[in-house]
Amino acid sequence: MEIICVGNELLIGKTLNTNAQWLAKRATTLGITIKRITTVGDDVDEIANAVREALERKPRFIITTGGLGPTFDDKTLEGIAKALNRRLELNEKALKMVREKYEEYAKAGKIDAFEMTPHRVKMARLPEGAEPLPNPVGTAPGVLIKTNGTDLIALPGVPSEMKSIFDEYVAAMLRKETGEITFFETSIYADNIMESTLAPLIDITMHDNPYVYIKSHPIGAEEKPHIEIHLSTTAKDSKTAKDRIGKAIIQLSELIRDKGGKVKLLKNENN
Amino acid sequence: MEIICVGNELLIGKTLNTNAQWLAKRATTLGITIKRITTVGDDVDEIANAVREALERKPRFIITTGGLGPTFDDKTLEGIAKALNRRLELNEKALKMVREKYEEYAKAGKIDAFEMTPHRVKMARLPEGAEPLPNPVGTAPGVLIKTNGTDLIALPGVPSEMKSIFDEYVAAMLRKETGEITFFETSIYADNIMESTLAPLIDITMHDNPYVYIKSHPIGAEEKPHIEIHLSTTAKDSKTAKDRIGKAIIQLSELIRDKGGKVKLLKNENN
Repeated sequence: MEIICVGNELLIGKTLNTNAQWLAKRATTLGITIKRITTVGDDVDEIANAVREALERKPRFIITTGGLGPTFDDKTLEGIAKALNRRLELNEKALKMVREKYEEYAKAGKIDAFEMTPHRVKMARLPEGAEPLPNPVGTAPGVLIKTNGTDLIALPGVPSEMKSIFDEYVAAMLRKETGEITFFETSIYADNIMESTLAPLIDITMHDNPYVYIKSHPIGAEEKPHIEIHLSTTAKDSKTAKDRIGKAIIQLSELIRDKGGKVKLLKNENN
Repeated sequence: MEIICVGNELLIGKTLNTNAQWLAKRATTLGITIKRITTVGDDVDEIANAVREALERKPRFIITTGGLGPTFDDKTLEGIAKALNRRLELNEKALKMVREKYEEYAKAGKIDAFEMTPHRVKMARLPEGAEPLPNPVGTAPGVLIKTNGTDLIALPGVPSEMKSIFDEYVAAMLRKETGEITFFETSIYADNIMESTLAPLIDITMHDNPYVYIKSHPIGAEEKPHIEIHLSTTAKDSKTAKDRIGKAIIQLSELIRDKGGKVKLLKNENN
């Protein structure tokens, strides 16, 4: 799977990309491997290029976030249409979704009067052949486009809307793909050992535990080391996954102690 | 400029990509435009592909973060070497930097004995023609490679090390490129107006203020709207920048009030 995030606010460092992390974590937990995350600005050609390049790598899924709203700089669907060489067209199902939201708001007195302005209609202009996904908490529908073995899913950038559409519709699509695969991860912490001393011990443990992926993350400085050691695996069931991780932790802990290091199950609070 | 972030921890959603935001913000403030941020895993081919594709777009700068350390999965320099069709070679200047760090640690009693293990020497194996950048707070040097009009700069993934090398060496390289250009940004907040009603007002204001970029970010839900309106510009001096933003704020505030909305200078605390 690939993730494409759209928004100038990400490229100027105004906004921290929590959407990418949330999507990556949820998809990983469902057993999906994410190969690349790309962030581009609110520019039709930049979006189209990123989508076209991702499609060429033939991932099973591409999820985009951002750029589905009513403003002039919400350009994701235009970019996707350009990448796919399709036209944007008024999608009747999407228009009904958008219209019903504003009728509801007007009825509840949240807006003065019901009116389908061009900016509101814009949210229902989807690439040809697209399927709108209802937005449980906002106005802009999500969009699903199946093309050449890739399911391309466009989600809004507002975190609550993105999460809501993902949980309601996208999670099931991913789960169907991976079946019953489980991702399991945990961390241990090492003190009194430098990352460069730890490195060969991780090599040995990974060699002896071929399904376990281990990565060290220094938290303290190299000369006053406190190192997080993150272990993860993907398996058919959670017992197998936990057994594998447990075995690797025992072996690695012994190797670290042999070198004079200390192993802890919790992070030092003062780091 | 483009940013390439390397690390499986980013692709599984374990780590929030604060490095990308920090770099994007610092570079933007120095007047540099970031066009794309790419995240890939600890895989030589994935890194090489991301670097090669970025080079083809001919940015003035590419900054990578992550993957310079002593462990087996620190593969950024191998990926860069592959993208550039250069070999990795022991860089004597880099080796001296790494050696001096470990000698210092041994002298201070922070490690048992000074020893240049293969994992430590690895941090000094740079692509041919590369220039090491001293790491003020860690062991792995940064790396600068000039190629075909692009300065490719590799920084560590540990935030304190990345920031330290950036501030010490990279900031000056970027500032030299942009001269005296200043980036200025501010936000105002609107209540009682939906984003879809605000959209045409932003269009008008941006049309009348061509150097000001305005983007709305809904914070509340669309039916109970609290909207951040972010205004930014880049100018030769900060007075020009502030005058431009001020003029746009006055015009947009009037338009919002005409539609029954309220404009605030601070964010609602309860959202």
